[in-house]
Amino acid sequence: MSAPSSAPFKLRSKNPDEIIAGSLLAKAYLSIRQYSERLCGPLEIEDYGLQAMASTSPAKWHLAHTTWFFETFLLKPYAPGYQPFHPEYEYLFNSYYNGVGNQYPRDQRGLLSRPTVAEVYRYRRYVDEALCELLDALPSRSADEIATRLELGCHHEQQHQELFHTDLKYCWFQNPLYPAYSDVPLPKSAPVAPLTWQSIDGQLQQIGHDSENGFCFDNELPRHQQYVEGFRIADRLVSNGEFLAFMEDGGYGRSDLWLADGWAALAAGSVNSHALAPLYWLQRDGQWFEYTLHGLVELDPNRPACHLSAYEADAFARWNDCRLPTEFEWEVSATRGDTKSEYQSPEEPALLHPQFGVQSAQKANVAGSLWQWTSSAYSPYPRFKAADGALGEYNGKFMANQLVLRGGSVATSPGHYRHSYRNFFYPQDQWQFTGVRLAQDL
Amino acid sequence: MSAPSSAPFKLRSKNPDEIIAGSLLAKAYLSIRQYSERLCGPLEIEDYGLQAMASTSPAKWHLAHTTWFFETFLLKPYAPGYQPFHPEYEYLFNSYYNGVGNQYPRDQRGLLSRPTVAEVYRYRRYVDEALCELLDALPSRSADEIATRLELGCHHEQQHQELFHTDLKYCWFQNPLYPAYSDVPLPKSAPVAPLTWQSIDGQLQQIGHDSENGFCFDNELPRHQQYVEGFRIADRLVSNGEFLAFMEDGGYGRSDLWLADGWAALAAGSVNSHALAPLYWLQRDGQWFEYTLHGLVELDPNRPACHLSAYEADAFARWNDCRLPTEFEWEVSATRGDTKSEYQSPEEPALLHPQFGVQSAQKANVAGSLWQWTSSAYSPYPRFKAADGALGEYNGKFMANQLVLRGGSVATSPGHYRHSYRNFFYPQDQWQFTGVRLAQDL
Amino acid sequence: MSAPSSAPFKLRSKNPDEIIAGSLLAKAYLSIRQYSERLCGPLEIEDYGLQAMASTSPAKWHLAHTTWFFETFLLKPYAPGYQPFHPEYEYLFNSYYNGVGNQYPRDQRGLLSRPTVAEVYRYRRYVDEALCELLDALPSRSADEIATRLELGCHHEQQHQELFHTDLKYCWFQNPLYPAYSDVPLPKSAPVAPLTWQSIDGQLQQIGHDSENGFCFDNELPRHQQYVEGFRIADRLVSNGEFLAFMEDGGYGRSDLWLADGWAALAAGSVNSHALAPLYWLQRDGQWFEYTLHGLVELDPNRPACHLSAYEADAFARWNDCRLPTEFEWEVSATRGDTKSEYQSPEEPALLHPQFGVQSAQKANVAGSLWQWTSSAYSPYPRFKAADGALGEYNGKFMANQLVLRGGSVATSPGHYRHSYRNFFYPQDQWQFTGVRLAQDL
Amino acid sequence: MSAPSSAPFKLRSKNPDEIIAGSLLAKAYLSIRQYSERLCGPLEIEDYGLQAMASTSPAKWHLAHTTWFFETFLLKPYAPGYQPFHPEYEYLFNSYYNGVGNQYPRDQRGLLSRPTVAEVYRYRRYVDEALCELLDALPSRSADEIATRLELGCHHEQQHQELFHTDLKYCWFQNPLYPAYSDVPLPKSAPVAPLTWQSIDGQLQQIGHDSENGFCFDNELPRHQQYVEGFRIADRLVSNGEFLAFMEDGGYGRSDLWLADGWAALAAGSVNSHALAPLYWLQRDGQWFEYTLHGLVELDPNRPACHLSAYEADAFARWNDCRLPTEFEWEVSATRGDTKSEYQSPEEPALLHPQFGVQSAQKANVAGSLWQWTSSAYSPYPRFKAADGALGEYNGKFMANQLVLRGGSVATSPGHYRHSYRNFFYPQDQWQFTGVRLAQDL
Repeated sequence: MSAPSSAPFKLRSKNPDEIIAGSLLAKAYLSIRQYSERLCGPLEIEDYGLQAMASTSPAKWHLAHTTWFFETFLLKPYAPGYQPFHPEYEYLFNSYYNGVGNQYPRDQRGLLSRPTVAEVYRYRRYVDEALCELLDALPSRSADEIATRLELGCHHEQQHQELFHTDLKYCWFQNPLYPAYSDVPLPKSAPVAPLTWQSIDGQLQQIGHDSENGFCFDNELPRHQQYVEGFRIADRLVSNGEFLAFMEDGGYGRSDLWLADGWAALAAGSVNSHALAPLYWLQRDGQWFEYTLHGLVELDPNRPACHLSAYEADAFARWNDCRLPTEFEWEVSATRGDTKSEYQSPEEPALLHPQFGVQSAQKANVAGSLWQWTSSAYSPYPRFKAADGALGEYNGKFMANQLVLRGGSVATSPGHYRHSYRNFFYPQDQWQFTGVRLAQDL
Repeated sequence: MSAPSSAPFKLRSKNPDEIIAGSLLAKAYLSIRQYSERLCGPLEIEDYGLQAMASTSPAKWHLAHTTWFFETFLLKPYAPGYQPFHPEYEYLFNSYYNGVGNQYPRDQRGLLSRPTVAEVYRYRRYVDEALCELLDALPSRSADEIATRLELGCHHEQQHQELFHTDLKYCWFQNPLYPAYSDVPLPKSAPVAPLTWQSIDGQLQQIGHDSENGFCFDNELPRHQQYVEGFRIADRLVSNGEFLAFMEDGGYGRSDLWLADGWAALAAGSVNSHALAPLYWLQRDGQWFEYTLHGLVELDPNRPACHLSAYEADAFARWNDCRLPTEFEWEVSATRGDTKSEYQSPEEPALLHPQFGVQSAQKANVAGSLWQWTSSAYSPYPRFKAADGALGEYNGKFMANQLVLRGGSVATSPGHYRHSYRNFFYPQDQWQFTGVRLAQDL
Repeated sequence: MSAPSSAPFKLRSKNPDEIIAGSLLAKAYLSIRQYSERLCGPLEIEDYGLQAMASTSPAKWHLAHTTWFFETFLLKPYAPGYQPFHPEYEYLFNSYYNGVGNQYPRDQRGLLSRPTVAEVYRYRRYVDEALCELLDALPSRSADEIATRLELGCHHEQQHQELFHTDLKYCWFQNPLYPAYSDVPLPKSAPVAPLTWQSIDGQLQQIGHDSENGFCFDNELPRHQQYVEGFRIADRLVSNGEFLAFMEDGGYGRSDLWLADGWAALAAGSVNSHALAPLYWLQRDGQWFEYTLHGLVELDPNRPACHLSAYEADAFARWNDCRLPTEFEWEVSATRGDTKSEYQSPEEPALLHPQFGVQSAQKANVAGSLWQWTSSAYSPYPRFKAADGALGEYNGKFMANQLVLRGGSVATSPGHYRHSYRNFFYPQDQWQFTGVRLAQDL
Repeated sequence: MSAPSSAPFKLRSKNPDEIIAGSLLAKAYLSIRQYSERLCGPLEIEDYGLQAMASTSPAKWHLAHTTWFFETFLLKPYAPGYQPFHPEYEYLFNSYYNGVGNQYPRDQRGLLSRPTVAEVYRYRRYVDEALCELLDALPSRSADEIATRLELGCHHEQQHQELFHTDLKYCWFQNPLYPAYSDVPLPKSAPVAPLTWQSIDGQLQQIGHDSENGFCFDNELPRHQQYVEGFRIADRLVSNGEFLAFMEDGGYGRSDLWLADGWAALAAGSVNSHALAPLYWLQRDGQWFEYTLHGLVELDPNRPACHLSAYEADAFARWNDCRLPTEFEWEVSATRGDTKSEYQSPEEPALLHPQFGVQSAQKANVAGSLWQWTSSAYSPYPRFKAADGALGEYNGKFMANQLVLRGGSVATSPGHYRHSYRNFFYPQDQWQFTGVRLAQDL
């Protein structure tokens, strides 16, 4: 499977005088769109409809909803005479945009056997063609708006490409046949290197996306100052072996290590129905196994520990006399001179499970392997402004009860990630590719 | 679609000296098996996996579970050297037979995208072939046991053929596209005839299956005496028009008409999420519609009212100063001289929605159109004995909290029904083809 | 504590010419009323408000609701110029009579700290006085109606006297201090006698209350015929020791012994939060204890096993190759010549926990010790008619999903019970004084 | 009712050479203890046991738990030969200290009719006496630890004094009799003054308690720097009239104003079971009423809007093109030169419902009337360290999913509050005295 485009696509020119070439936009657009479909290669028709919990969506729904996004926010307002593909799709494939209208119940998306997979692909073709026509005839009056929304739509589709992986993994895990998405075997791992620390003194720091520097979501703005006290942060993720040591020391049974809500979640049995262990761990005849997109494999102590909730991450950190980093610490650390230029989206996502030492550089695991829980609540940056209208619902309305994660993961689409990226999930969520970086006060 | 066999198939000879011809058994068996598959004709692959509530099962699961039944109860014990098709299927496709082993959680059957539909059909082929081999070489020592279990397995599969229809209907109803299973248009109906009554005096009656008379389930036995007081019973089902009159008279709001548990179920909103009306009714611009396996159609007052819970049936009867019949009254009425010979399984199920007057005889609606709620709790007949072993779980363990229904329905497979048949569901259940026959004390 | 009146009170004369003496009615009425209050003797003010589950009501609520019954059904319609004690009480203390009006939510009765206990006693005084005035001036035009409703109200209050005990027991059991209602020590028990059987041949039987014979509830009528096949029934209840043997044989883990709904209830953990055992059993240091109204005591194998659900009762019977009796079998057995006259309500309820051999006669445990689950669904007898109006809600609307129990219990008020009495609870209910009598086909 | 002591009590001397006088400690201690009991003056015995939801505790439980705190953390470790009052109380009255042991289920505290109210008062006496003895003989070796824990215990009891009010209010609101705690009539209010703003420029600010300045909880430490951008903040709370305007503009129906989780909570009906309105609002004949501790009163537009969730507060702010302040903005604003010295705990809490203009100074409503939602997640300050042992569970383990509130309320005990105080509740919580202060970017 080849990545959508070797360079992260670039839709808007920073030079307002430059003419935006619709054909280049279309090329970038189609590259993202085709990537979504290539991801479905290993799927059987039956797999497209799975929904094992309300938070996950069927693959088919992801394919249709991302299409709906372009239809709703580009074709309907900007393409003259555009005829919607189907009158019910506005309702069926709206995720949460109240400004657009009502939504089919989120927890019942798995019940939509119709439209069929084939029909959803026809929907994609139909919208792709209409959009290419729109870009071809790019009306200068609204060219900038169109390009802006197109870019957002492409990043939106990339977000669903990651969810495609995590949702499928969660659904397949419910099946005792444990299907494998990839038949590439996971490589043998070398012993994990001892953990070392990066130390940074306390000072005022610039946080947030530098708007000179390409696309970002609204929640990464505005760039602003934060006073960040001295801290140190680990140079790599926590490993399975280290998490096993926590478990063997009774970590899941020691209330003093857990936040009260996390302890209550444990008591309610919400971690893993098979064992008191990370979400995808199973024990058979005394041996731990881990479900991965490469199938059910023996747990390897030398791989990063993943699919942890923030509660598990926090308890593990506390057991180590450490803590989770704040999102500001994380960003400061990641954008320091020595690491700043280092992170490169892989051309090709080789593996869909995190490994140590796969990336070339020494700080390889800082980003691109697992999303890393921070202790920071997902809140608006000072002077944050959401967009007007329904698109303003994209990020802002979720700024309650969730935590920020940083770092990207093996399931993040090439070209999608940057260090100012603020991913967000509820602390109990485990089905994303989430891991732990340790931090400490300096 | 042609029915499995013109005469109800006959597996066992009553004459113990007669040789049971394995080839005849195989023919009857294959006829039933093929019918299950023909029912899936209108399905897309995506439809095979739907499960909208715990009580419904995906079509694919029905196909696999009925196969599992033959594999478990015939091939494993009787076919020498039989190799199970897949080691996990014993677990995946066991419905509720604790005597066989644990079961994959019933409410998660919709999460099994694998095995695929194609794989399940391969499973069916594999078992069909092994079973025909077994029947071909029918070992005389266990011939009777094999024939007995084969017959049970065939009736079992027919029961799942009915559930195939009702489960699919329930699942598709969750989809605002309201898919149609059949493209045959429902015929225009004539005004429903005025209701007349059949009166029967009080006397001791014989109840239960006459064992001289072919196959029956264990719960229809033993034939025994019941004293049945004088009663009268309507000659036809209640119509949509009559049920609408109940609704227009405020029937759903009059607590005096409802059993306490039914009233509580109404308050909990469990009837129909669209309207205070029978399960599949919708209102659009003041007009009532009804979802049928022939699609969403305008509600026809001259069709039988269907998909009622026992609570709705009971409230409606009370509003008419009537009551539901007991199962004994129903059986006595149905097996009277004038009606006894009348019920003929249709060769071909023409329509999958109940109609008045479709069958030729005057008492046509007594049976074969809708299952009819009785007021009788589903309890063992005096001296009832369940079979030994796991097959004893077939009926007996469900004798709590459910009510008996009689009459068969448009979704009942040809040749499957008889008047001593005791179907059973919880009083709140609505997704079966259920209707009302009124009764009164004489 | 002395019982309300040595002879069961008699409100109505059978001789229509005879003058009904209001003063006699008042005396019987007050006797019942005072008994309710005497039952509260051991209570602290704090105990009057407890409600540990929706099915139980606070003692204070019982005191008020029974008063409400007389106010609503006698004083309001028949007492000229009667002023209700408080305008909100019609709402607060209505249990389930929709015909009277809306009801304060049943599951929140424990939240009514006001009116206080003292205020509820004032309410009782107020109604008692008004009612005695009404009886004193008994208007001949409605004397019969008044006497009929008064008698019903008295039996109604007696039913709440039993619930007073069972609800309090359930609530106190939630408290690790395990308060004792009675400080009378439970007597030492002798070894339980071996079980013997009473056999009765199959025949048509008269079932239901003989209306010549005093008061009964509407659900005991009409007396009618049932064909009852030959059966035998145990002469005593099952003992704790016998139930322990079932447990030690793995009874709670053997799915083949359980009805499917009972097995599901076990899996859902609904039996006893302390142990897989009857509701009030606890284990400490390997010794079983049982919570009783006489406090927490060591489990005595020679006492009747009590507080079983119908599922537990049924599984135990099945383990013994027996079954539960039907309510008809129970009634036939109890009213046979040799036992008919035997059951005498005790003048004084000595103990609030069942014992073997306390009553004098040899068949002592047939009645008066524990309510005995039957296998009979609580259904209307043929030609059953509920009363008109709100009083018609007394029994009829509960005829769904419940089972009949027979026999009375140690908590049943003196004079309240008779052999045609049909008590009814859901099969999962355990908080009543319920036990098992074994039966078998003959 | 007179307040515990005119000056906030002072337990520890800052001068290490000074002798700590045990008798002064005892006096301060007893003053707090007596205040708790005086608060119970208006209660009937029946009121002491109410628990209407898991988050609220019965008054009796508050009285016992605060006593347990002193017994557990002072008497058991420091009083030689101390005999616990009752062996089960360690379990019954432990709130959430896993380090001490298991806890009686929090949501069942209302089921503990025993110990009685009288017994709990005896428990208080017993512990008070033992504690005074301990203080009298104050062992110099542990004097400082004792004084520290005593002070914490006193502040702890004051926190429960506030919960006493809010929990009782919530419980009584479930009773249609709407009991009044105070018979003092609420004063007539004058028209609320137009809202004005305080503006503060962006700069580095010192946040957190100044440890030179008396007692604080661990979560107010350490004092540290935060960069706070320029903002302005309203000089008073939002009024009922202003909130009504929001409602009349359809505020509860406009999804664009709500955080996604708040909108979902509205859909789930969790705001107010009577109306789409703040928790304690009721409508009768077109007139709004509000339940207060002074009884059910007509809604007064000129009183502060209270018992709002953070979701309601946030939606209201958004409707005004404002936002909630951060906790840092709030603290900076409150501790500015002009307001710093202004807040005085009232000697006597005159009223238990917020009023405008009751306090003397112009900035009167900044503090002491209602807790004010901030947009800040309740997180540890940089370098926060919880205490060792079970006392470390006091604050730290709740730093997830909650928001900080500032300002104190009419139910806050005299002397308890300071501007660095960090109260915390879940955003959906409404039963505290919570209101809104508006803020904006500068």
